[in-house]
Amino acid sequence: MCTIVLFGATGDLARRKLFPALYNLYLDQLLPENFGVVGIGRRLESREEFIASVTQAIRSFSRQTQADRCTEFLKHLDYLQMDINSSQSFSYLRERLPQGNILYYLSVPPEQFDPIIEELLRAGLTSSRAAWRRVIIEKPFGWDLASARQLNDKIRSAFSEADIFRIDHYLGKGMLQNIQVIRFANSVFENLWNYRYIDHVQIRASETVGVEDRGAYYDQTGALRDMVQNHLLQALTLVAMEPPINLSAEAVRDEKVKVLRSLVPFSAEEVRENVVRGQFGPGLINGQRVRGYREEENVAADSHTETFTALKVYVNNFRWAQVPFYLRTGKRMAGQSVEIVIQFKNLPGVLYFDQPNNLQPNILAIKVQPEEGLVFQFNGINLDSQEEIVPVKMDFCHNCAGGSRGPEAYERLLYDAINGDSTLFTRWDEVEHSWRFIDAIADAWRQAGTEPLIYPAGSWGPRAADLLLERDGRRWCLV
Amino acid sequence: MCTIVLFGATGDLARRKLFPALYNLYLDQLLPENFGVVGIGRRLESREEFIASVTQAIRSFSRQTQADRCTEFLKHLDYLQMDINSSQSFSYLRERLPQGNILYYLSVPPEQFDPIIEELLRAGLTSSRAAWRRVIIEKPFGWDLASARQLNDKIRSAFSEADIFRIDHYLGKGMLQNIQVIRFANSVFENLWNYRYIDHVQIRASETVGVEDRGAYYDQTGALRDMVQNHLLQALTLVAMEPPINLSAEAVRDEKVKVLRSLVPFSAEEVRENVVRGQFGPGLINGQRVRGYREEENVAADSHTETFTALKVYVNNFRWAQVPFYLRTGKRMAGQSVEIVIQFKNLPGVLYFDQPNNLQPNILAIKVQPEEGLVFQFNGINLDSQEEIVPVKMDFCHNCAGGSRGPEAYERLLYDAINGDSTLFTRWDEVEHSWRFIDAIADAWRQAGTEPLIYPAGSWGPRAADLLLERDGRRWCLV
Repeated sequence: MCTIVLFGATGDLARRKLFPALYNLYLDQLLPENFGVVGIGRRLESREEFIASVTQAIRSFSRQTQADRCTEFLKHLDYLQMDINSSQSFSYLRERLPQGNILYYLSVPPEQFDPIIEELLRAGLTSSRAAWRRVIIEKPFGWDLASARQLNDKIRSAFSEADIFRIDHYLGKGMLQNIQVIRFANSVFENLWNYRYIDHVQIRASETVGVEDRGAYYDQTGALRDMVQNHLLQALTLVAMEPPINLSAEAVRDEKVKVLRSLVPFSAEEVRENVVRGQFGPGLINGQRVRGYREEENVAADSHTETFTALKVYVNNFRWAQVPFYLRTGKRMAGQSVEIVIQFKNLPGVLYFDQPNNLQPNILAIKVQPEEGLVFQFNGINLDSQEEIVPVKMDFCHNCAGGSRGPEAYERLLYDAINGDSTLFTRWDEVEHSWRFIDAIADAWRQAGTEPLIYPAGSWGPRAADLLLERDGRRWCLV
Repeated sequence: MCTIVLFGATGDLARRKLFPALYNLYLDQLLPENFGVVGIGRRLESREEFIASVTQAIRSFSRQTQADRCTEFLKHLDYLQMDINSSQSFSYLRERLPQGNILYYLSVPPEQFDPIIEELLRAGLTSSRAAWRRVIIEKPFGWDLASARQLNDKIRSAFSEADIFRIDHYLGKGMLQNIQVIRFANSVFENLWNYRYIDHVQIRASETVGVEDRGAYYDQTGALRDMVQNHLLQALTLVAMEPPINLSAEAVRDEKVKVLRSLVPFSAEEVRENVVRGQFGPGLINGQRVRGYREEENVAADSHTETFTALKVYVNNFRWAQVPFYLRTGKRMAGQSVEIVIQFKNLPGVLYFDQPNNLQPNILAIKVQPEEGLVFQFNGINLDSQEEIVPVKMDFCHNCAGGSRGPEAYERLLYDAINGDSTLFTRWDEVEHSWRFIDAIADAWRQAGTEPLIYPAGSWGPRAADLLLERDGRRWCLV
């Protein structure tokens, strides 16, 4: 028997991602034969209400449907309305739980991590001689290094590192998993993947949405903590890591943490030069007027929180010496996508490169979402005129011709956690080194006391973000 | 004024390729403003008949049409019925020719090259103080090194090397022109294009047709002379050559000839091991029964002529040490296309390559015709299952979504000859070294006195051609 205890079962993430993911794993026969889900929430009172809400969630968000099997799936679901601050509730939970393995999923606001872990421990629910107890922690994993450490200590008091699954759902995305394969299963890419051939790397995660109903959370967090510390730095580790000695979770994460430890830390002065901090003002998204960040709900009218950041960072090792990684993320931008661009060095200025900048560089774009695929831009003869040389694209797109049949990130990650594979989860030392790097930036901003640069909603961010590359003779690339 | 004097104006090549090409150059305004074409033939009697035949040719074979401009184009055409063995005819031709530049195009059977050059020289038509005189020689340029030398001496007695345009229409094909650009205008390809990264190269030109109405010619010639000596070895030089010091015709051809000089020549013993000689028997093409080669018209019933050949050759220089080039061409094969495949070396047997041959190699296919484009095959995660690793293709296809708008090979080549650019034409030393390499094979065959291996029409040639690669642990690749 395997039971998933889901805290936050009536929340937005559970509704949009987790129940649809569980349902799809069920349809694909990837859940243990004998499984149960205990949803825990505050909002709904009865199992009936809960089942109705899950049914609705599956209808709206599942990538697969199979009406007859939905009823069957729902039979595996139980619901508990619970006050997480009451020890009694947890005693009651203990009695409701069947024998066997248990996976706790903490899909709750960060301030509840602590009390839940505390109560699980007190109720004797975090260990068992005969079966495993694992825990998935949703982001954010702390607000800075100090708070992350505190949280980690708490979790470690109840679970061992091997049983802790710190989720970064970006790692579940197919094309991010693919980076490792692209790099280490292809001689062409493997041979070129270093400072000798690569000019620089760009990693972008841009959104067109604003803060939606997460104003209160977001205004305390900002783009740096919400996106860079986890998603963007994780993507960077996948692009930059050395080949692991094998494909085990530990070997892979050993290499990823080495990248984070190799990040050149910023002084306050360097933060000013290499990190751009922006906040969206009013503007146009798809021709519709939208309000500025400070007018969003639950956001302070004089907020200094950044909704955009662009960084130029270096990985200080032999492979990446002198190769900048430019990261960029923001809300209310001109386009919504996640993409990694590898720009290769140009050839020397002879033959076709006889004029500076007369040809475009070779570019490999790894498209993570919404399109999943690869684009390679190279120079070729214009086959129509057979005269000039033009940039030409070769591409592979997994999901362009209709929807992907591939699993969503949360399916993959739930499956892995149930099966004890933590390769796609963040190990503590990764979290630690990411925060150390991010804290230096946040501290410098706080000490400087400056305001973020305002950019119009629907743009690509403040002009300073373009200058970050232009002063190096480069530019942001949209493939 | 520029006059094109076309010998063989009522022949098949003129009808299917040359007049359509001239017409398209005219439509694209790429001919000199003041131009004329004098068609010379034996078959037709009057200009009217000739004009009717050209009109028909344009209707059937031109890639562009523009009815109102066709009449205009035809006004530039003149016709002369002529016996090429009569000096009088050439005197008459001289009187008919206007002042100005003249391009002679010898689209005639090889035995007529000599008398035509002879008579042009005698009539004083091969030189002029005030204007240029150029000559385009159609293939075949000789039947072996001795005859090629003889032909060349004859032409050189009348024209200087710079005015001789030995045509190999493969060089006019867009994707063959593109090889040089792909290699030298892209750092990714340039850096990998050598023995360190490339396992081997395959060059294929396969036809599904038999000898059609060329039986008499073909039975004297065979695949080695008809295809390998010129087209395949030319393609090989483009793949293998060092970067030229500049893009001039001489610099490029200097490098191409170096490749031909670096070909490791075959001893008779090595011909037996490395060259497969086949002849098609009866078989099926697209489900239709077709007769064998020896039953084709104007072919000897006991012919030993090869309609297929496959070779493994080496280019003995630093760049290509130990990298075999496998060439393959044939008639009545299972598919019709021209393609160059670059297969990259596999990575060492760690990580994803932990089992021998568990992953496919990286492959770059240069598609020359009928599709024009590039395909790169690499290994990626199966994004549907996210479990296994599968070969994935990125591609660029110029003409897959409907017809290409690009010029045909003969347009490009005629344009270049008119403009004095001989980059895409074969210099004498290229011809010389190709024949030297080919003669060794032909001689070994003749001395051995063996028969070609019979393969069924509609197959990929004799089994021996597969073994040529299989004994090296490789196989022919169809991308």
